Amino acid sequence: MLQLTSQPSEPSTLLPIKSAVMAIGGAEDKVRGRQILQTFFNRAGGEEAIIAVIPSASREPDVMGQVYLDIFTEMGAKGVEVMMVTERHHGEDDQLLTSLEDCTGVFMSGGDQIRLCALLEDTPLMEKVRAKVWQGEVVLAGTSAGAAVLGHHMIASGGSGEAPNRALVDMAIGLGIIPEVIVDQHFYNRNRLARLISAIAAHPDRLGIGVDEDTCALFEADGLIQVIGKGAVTIVDPRHVTCSNYNSTGMTDPLSLYNLKLHVLSHGDCYDLHKHEVHSQKAEFPSV
Amino acid sequence: MLQLTSQPSEPSTLLPIKSAVMAIGGAEDKVRGRQILQTFFNRAGGEEAIIAVIPSASREPDVMGQVYLDIFTEMGAKGVEVMMVTERHHGEDDQLLTSLEDCTGVFMSGGDQIRLCALLEDTPLMEKVRAKVWQGEVVLAGTSAGAAVLGHHMIASGGSGEAPNRALVDMAIGLGIIPEVIVDQHFYNRNRLARLISAIAAHPDRLGIGVDEDTCALFEADGLIQVIGKGAVTIVDPRHVTCSNYNSTGMTDPLSLYNLKLHVLSHGDCYDLHKHEVHSQKAEFPSV
Repeated sequence: MLQLTSQPSEPSTLLPIKSAVMAIGGAEDKVRGRQILQTFFNRAGGEEAIIAVIPSASREPDVMGQVYLDIFTEMGAKGVEVMMVTERHHGEDDQLLTSLEDCTGVFMSGGDQIRLCALLEDTPLMEKVRAKVWQGEVVLAGTSAGAAVLGHHMIASGGSGEAPNRALVDMAIGLGIIPEVIVDQHFYNRNRLARLISAIAAHPDRLGIGVDEDTCALFEADGLIQVIGKGAVTIVDPRHVTCSNYNSTGMTDPLSLYNLKLHVLSHGDCYDLHKHEVHSQKAEFPSV
Repeated sequence: MLQLTSQPSEPSTLLPIKSAVMAIGGAEDKVRGRQILQTFFNRAGGEEAIIAVIPSASREPDVMGQVYLDIFTEMGAKGVEVMMVTERHHGEDDQLLTSLEDCTGVFMSGGDQIRLCALLEDTPLMEKVRAKVWQGEVVLAGTSAGAAVLGHHMIASGGSGEAPNRALVDMAIGLGIIPEVIVDQHFYNRNRLARLISAIAAHPDRLGIGVDEDTCALFEADGLIQVIGKGAVTIVDPRHVTCSNYNSTGMTDPLSLYNLKLHVLSHGDCYDLHKHEVHSQKAEFPSV
């Protein structure tokens, strides 16, 4: 059991993003109110939106791409294109890179986050998406696997039904759109609080963000996270953890973690990444 | 969303108990090291121990009683008696009350906590057990259902796979041995963190104690909780919660809870109920 000699460094409060990034916990409503998808559509410019759908995480990218193409077309987007990146060299395709120039919204589907990263990381296409998000030129949304990849550190896979431990989660490197966070999805639906705690124990300089199904953590450029949707967004904040046995315990032994802070947030709640405070904006926050 | 006008009252730091109370998370090792059962046996007096086993939570109290009778007999207890309380009037039985006089340890088995409470609450037998614990005359252990009943408020049943919400947990009144806490068991094994958070949202003046299988939260008379065993003990501390929508939300809507403190503790860790602090006693704590 090691006493931490100093507090873990705070996650940077200066998000690199200059436009909204939406981490969706999977299984977002695609039929009725479509609250989250409608929010993405609106943020991307509404009827002026030009949207790129990246279905690369899916094993059926044709099907998955068509689903979102139909939805955003039906909503009235000015343009929707499915970017069929199913081989790494597609991420160098000049035509896709040219198309991306005019995009106002990029939507990454669900599937397998390892596959998504393997296809996209370090490609010119991904570099351009990241640059456009950081420069405020495009709204980015990712659902399920598409949300898992947003941080620098990514949960590749993991288990449940165990106390937090080092073997409960497999980490990998994500796409680093918002490096400061580790995003988990299908969160309470698949009982993933223990695995997110395990991930944060490994990386106590990051902030854990657990997003439920049909729920979105909407990162604003000004450092606010807004919660939209039916479930909860859980913030796992390790900044005040005083002691952890992470580096001195066996892989499957239960972890000790003292003084972890947890915020369980629902629709309309808001977390301020600058002040590390939560507040409710239920009265002010528009539902779409 | 209601802002709390004041902090919820702190759980009393003056435990009524004057001897150890062991909250065991179920499925404790009964065969090999028997670390937790051996600790109970030792605390009850070792070879001088006179132990009462109360198997009332079980649907097969004969079988369950015999299991523990055999174990404590094999360990060398001076006396072991199974108290077959299977009807409420058994809790008034003079012979059982007389037997209890000499006991140094009482062990409550697993099963159904509602059944256990229905059979025992407000009986002379239970009053006597509680009085003897509070007077320091007997060590009490409860496993699974036997641990669930220890607080004033008790989790009767609940679900998982959902964000914390009012409908996720059914509360009842427990046996009130340690009124200040709400104990949950089979904790990470059955993904019960969300239901314990839901229970604590309903009773923010209590402290949540989640105990894993083959793990024990050992409450000492001096206000320390020691952790023994293979899993984790999770402390859910709502004393600093600044905002909760508990009283303004629908039964199945996700709860908002800001600033919940969580301590994930493993074998050898220690929580001080007076100071509300955690510290490691790994070096000092004997394994049995």
